[in-house]
Amino acid sequence: MVSHIPAPDEVEIVFQPYGARKKFPAGINLWEAAKALGVDISSLCAGKGTCGKCKVKLTKGLEGLSPPGQRELKHISEDEMKVNIRLACQAKVMKSAIVFVPERSRVGKQRLQTEGMEIAVEPNPLVKKIFVKVTPPTLHDMRADEDRLLEALKETHGLSNIKVDFEVVRTLPIVLRKGNWEVTVVLWKDEIRGVEPGNTTERCFGFASDIGTTKLAGFLMDLNTGKVISLAARMNPQIPLGEDVMSRITHAMMNGWEAAVELQKAVIGGLNEIIDECCEKAKVKVEEIYELNFVGNTAMQLLFLGVWPQYAALAPYPAVVRRGMDVHANKLGLKSHPNANTHFLPVIGGFVGADNVAVVLASNMLEADDMTLAIDIGTNTEIDLGNKNGILSDSCASGPAFEGMEVRFGMRASTGAIERISIDPDSLDIFYRTIGDEKPVGICGSALVDAPAEMFKSGIINTKGAFVPEFEKRTKRIRKGPQGWEYVVAWKDETNTDTDITVTQADVRELQKAKAAMHTGAEILMRRMNVKEDDIAHLVIAGAFGNYVDPENARILGMYPEIAMDRIKFVGNIAGTGSRMSLISEEMREYAEKISKTVKYLELAVDPDFQDEYMKSFYFPHANLDRYPVTTKLLQKLGRLP
Amino acid sequence: MVSHIPAPDEVEIVFQPYGARKKFPAGINLWEAAKALGVDISSLCAGKGTCGKCKVKLTKGLEGLSPPGQRELKHISEDEMKVNIRLACQAKVMKSAIVFVPERSRVGKQRLQTEGMEIAVEPNPLVKKIFVKVTPPTLHDMRADEDRLLEALKETHGLSNIKVDFEVVRTLPIVLRKGNWEVTVVLWKDEIRGVEPGNTTERCFGFASDIGTTKLAGFLMDLNTGKVISLAARMNPQIPLGEDVMSRITHAMMNGWEAAVELQKAVIGGLNEIIDECCEKAKVKVEEIYELNFVGNTAMQLLFLGVWPQYAALAPYPAVVRRGMDVHANKLGLKSHPNANTHFLPVIGGFVGADNVAVVLASNMLEADDMTLAIDIGTNTEIDLGNKNGILSDSCASGPAFEGMEVRFGMRASTGAIERISIDPDSLDIFYRTIGDEKPVGICGSALVDAPAEMFKSGIINTKGAFVPEFEKRTKRIRKGPQGWEYVVAWKDETNTDTDITVTQADVRELQKAKAAMHTGAEILMRRMNVKEDDIAHLVIAGAFGNYVDPENARILGMYPEIAMDRIKFVGNIAGTGSRMSLISEEMREYAEKISKTVKYLELAVDPDFQDEYMKSFYFPHANLDRYPVTTKLLQKLGRLP
Repeated sequence: MVSHIPAPDEVEIVFQPYGARKKFPAGINLWEAAKALGVDISSLCAGKGTCGKCKVKLTKGLEGLSPPGQRELKHISEDEMKVNIRLACQAKVMKSAIVFVPERSRVGKQRLQTEGMEIAVEPNPLVKKIFVKVTPPTLHDMRADEDRLLEALKETHGLSNIKVDFEVVRTLPIVLRKGNWEVTVVLWKDEIRGVEPGNTTERCFGFASDIGTTKLAGFLMDLNTGKVISLAARMNPQIPLGEDVMSRITHAMMNGWEAAVELQKAVIGGLNEIIDECCEKAKVKVEEIYELNFVGNTAMQLLFLGVWPQYAALAPYPAVVRRGMDVHANKLGLKSHPNANTHFLPVIGGFVGADNVAVVLASNMLEADDMTLAIDIGTNTEIDLGNKNGILSDSCASGPAFEGMEVRFGMRASTGAIERISIDPDSLDIFYRTIGDEKPVGICGSALVDAPAEMFKSGIINTKGAFVPEFEKRTKRIRKGPQGWEYVVAWKDETNTDTDITVTQADVRELQKAKAAMHTGAEILMRRMNVKEDDIAHLVIAGAFGNYVDPENARILGMYPEIAMDRIKFVGNIAGTGSRMSLISEEMREYAEKISKTVKYLELAVDPDFQDEYMKSFYFPHANLDRYPVTTKLLQKLGRLP
Repeated sequence: MVSHIPAPDEVEIVFQPYGARKKFPAGINLWEAAKALGVDISSLCAGKGTCGKCKVKLTKGLEGLSPPGQRELKHISEDEMKVNIRLACQAKVMKSAIVFVPERSRVGKQRLQTEGMEIAVEPNPLVKKIFVKVTPPTLHDMRADEDRLLEALKETHGLSNIKVDFEVVRTLPIVLRKGNWEVTVVLWKDEIRGVEPGNTTERCFGFASDIGTTKLAGFLMDLNTGKVISLAARMNPQIPLGEDVMSRITHAMMNGWEAAVELQKAVIGGLNEIIDECCEKAKVKVEEIYELNFVGNTAMQLLFLGVWPQYAALAPYPAVVRRGMDVHANKLGLKSHPNANTHFLPVIGGFVGADNVAVVLASNMLEADDMTLAIDIGTNTEIDLGNKNGILSDSCASGPAFEGMEVRFGMRASTGAIERISIDPDSLDIFYRTIGDEKPVGICGSALVDAPAEMFKSGIINTKGAFVPEFEKRTKRIRKGPQGWEYVVAWKDETNTDTDITVTQADVRELQKAKAAMHTGAEILMRRMNVKEDDIAHLVIAGAFGNYVDPENARILGMYPEIAMDRIKFVGNIAGTGSRMSLISEEMREYAEKISKTVKYLELAVDPDFQDEYMKSFYFPHANLDRYPVTTKLLQKLGRLP
């Protein structure tokens, strides 16, 4: 790793994942070293050690760092210590070191928030292209065009019992002659979905997507290599028809089929924009997309397919159809090859849909001996707990608060969004960072975790989430606005808006409801499976902003059970990962069917402990502090708890 | 049969198929007896024995009739004698008798010309309706709607591996609840195509059709009983885009996909009118039609399905697709249940299509020991020869002349059409009968066989089909019109038109071309299979007007090989019969696939004997009279041949 032994007063510092390395005089701090190498490490306080945003992880050389001082210990929990987390601006390097910069500490221009981990899957797509030479007809060999194509496939590739799509038949005579009897057959499973003149086997693409209640993510993939070649995202255009799934289904219920079709057209329209953008970026024609694979919750499944959704929103919330659905893309109006297949992964039950099947698939938790708790945070949050012996799952309407909706100055993660917030507990002053380093226009998801956490740590709000009125005297940032208490994050003249950017009491309540719902969902599963925090080997946090969120702040809020930091994995949009995996692999698609049949669904609404647990989860971090020993210690250190 | 023994001077006469019976004084002629009983026997000369149109067949009591005199013998051939045919107006009854009146000798108001023989087939349709009670969901049984329906079908009917059509899924939640969890499943093969609230098993209908180049025939059938419940017919609305298949395909070739779609829409539109009419007659909703079954030649197959037809019209004329095609009816725009299946029976090759498969199926010739020659006369005529050891088939473009097209005063068989013609060889005067006994407006198919035959028998045209100029002097009916020689069938003031109705030299040429093509098609098959007239046990004449045509006149023209009259069966629209059989029986549909694979197609155009035989077939009845011994004798009797 280290290329050679440096002089005793020199240290070599390597920053990963960039691979940037350089020798520095011993004693330099990591933040300065990073700056010198052009490695952008996040800092809101410009290296003063007050914002706590420049956390890095030592891969090698921890023992050669200066021991953490008081200032650093304020920001680093015991748990983080255990996994070698330090504040870059405080840690001085005395011996060579290798440092990993977590994504949340990197400075990024803009967040697509579509990324999820990549998992290597041997490509074995359901769509295969086969080049074949066909014997032309003569007066002595008058077999039908279709028969001679099928017989050529049998002779040259040993393929038999192949079906031919009706639409393919319609143009088959033209294509065979245009290709001078040399054509490429597009096979989907055992069915010919296209025939193209000449040899086009090298151009074979697919589209994988995750249909979120709030966000649509799409990935154009090369089916020959299994690689993503371009990606794009959009807000779900259904939002104006209802912010959450219940209000969208209600819209359909109240207004009938026309409204259901309107919702379907909205999401298809958004997906078509994504498909166009992906194709343009990668110089692929939409007609070269031969299969499309989708995941989403059960409501998204119904609204995407145009299935009447009413009863999925009424107790006992049965799904309409569990299995994976195959539909011609042109029936749905999706841009692609006219006979492309559209697959929507199977669902589980209630609101636990194909996105959750994809999470279980990509996390591989159903194959593991160890117990995994997976939480896919979104407008609807799905939670799974289990291992190879079985998985129990539930879902909660966490609302789109963490996606920037239903919060006064909430916004998506784009240029000008405040993405990181830190509050100095002494001055109650704020440090923030925006995407693109532009003047702020709003607050996006990751900073909406920071805001209540930092406010709580500073004492501005109490364990019940209520503003503490006395703080009004300590800073002008805390004031009574027209809608109650609020904290000014950015003054009007700092912003690119015509008003102060604030976090209000109502905003805190929205975020509190969301976190309480999530925690309750996890807690009930743990009770029903008789699992304690210590039994959980892996806490997988999925969801678009997972990569950018501050895990310590999330835990201070009590968003999820207190699991040791080294057991937590932030996997980003893992539902999208699962969608991609099952686009390129027939085995993964079969595995998804198995998951859909195996995972058991628990209906939270009828669980006898639900109400009680939900009320307890409203507290920061929780009414029952015994369950949060590490967090409790940190809060005690900060003087927030006795 | 005869109820009791009548007095010696009384005879009882029974007319079949009417079942009318009465006692008459001995010596009454059959025509008078029929009139007295209200049995309409055709006669153009009002019982004078000159028109020869009142032929009846003695089922019993031939020996008690007066022997045939000179006048009668002029009209009855030796062959007809053998099968007990007599002229009703000439035969006096001395002993009780049972008489069958053939359809062609009956007087009918209007001809649908859609009838074909009914063949009893045990109904086993591909569509089955199943009433099933489904367990409603509870919070403890949250299976998806689809799963609980499928599991109910398995538990109560032992059905497994059932698929569900996508469109069914879309409304399934509504239907299940509307029926209070009691529903009727519409199963097509192993796929649920519909789910209806409550028990609708008694209402299960299908539609069978024969798509002719000139005429569309449709039959609404009860799939539970296998019976036809209503029928209707229309001219093929593609006619304005081209009278025969070649000109229609050329229309598409010259004008591209739009024209192909125009042709498709035309025929679908005509079929929809027929479906509407059938449904209205039978008080069935179009949505209660769950499957539609079609036959037609290969060009009709392509134009109906919207397949690009160009290459089917260019040597070597390969079919595009041989197998039977299943397509959702709504994809084609056919009026029916939205998920009804449309089946188009498999084709054979060249222009020999599904209509011919249906003829082979309904005639059952592929199962017979005896040799059958089947000729399905239409705009395109298909011919089959063979038995269980194999069948060879070909097709010829006989043109729509016998369907009333391409003939100056040709018309369809509707009110005012001259449907029967007889010429007195002495006076050269004409007797005709119109449909509905209205003033004539034109000449339909059956009379277009009579016209040249009667003109030939009278010597007006010679064995080459040319008008014999000398006859001009004998009657004003023969004259030189603006377009050459013509024979006046009806004077202007007798008609409902503003002109004389004539048969012209050009008309005779059209009919001659048609008959020459048909005969050549049969002759070449016989040569290739080394079969002589005597080897043929059954001559099956199919086609719309088969039931109404005068078989003697058809043979005088040499439309088909001279087969003994008792071996000839006129089966009408047997292609429609085959379409009906394969609508109501899965076994028959499988049999059609077998026929399509078994029957061998012979391309007439490249047969080395084709040109020569076609020229010889131009003669009335044929250049080689050795092949027409019985006809030759009749023509000698009439003085037409030496």
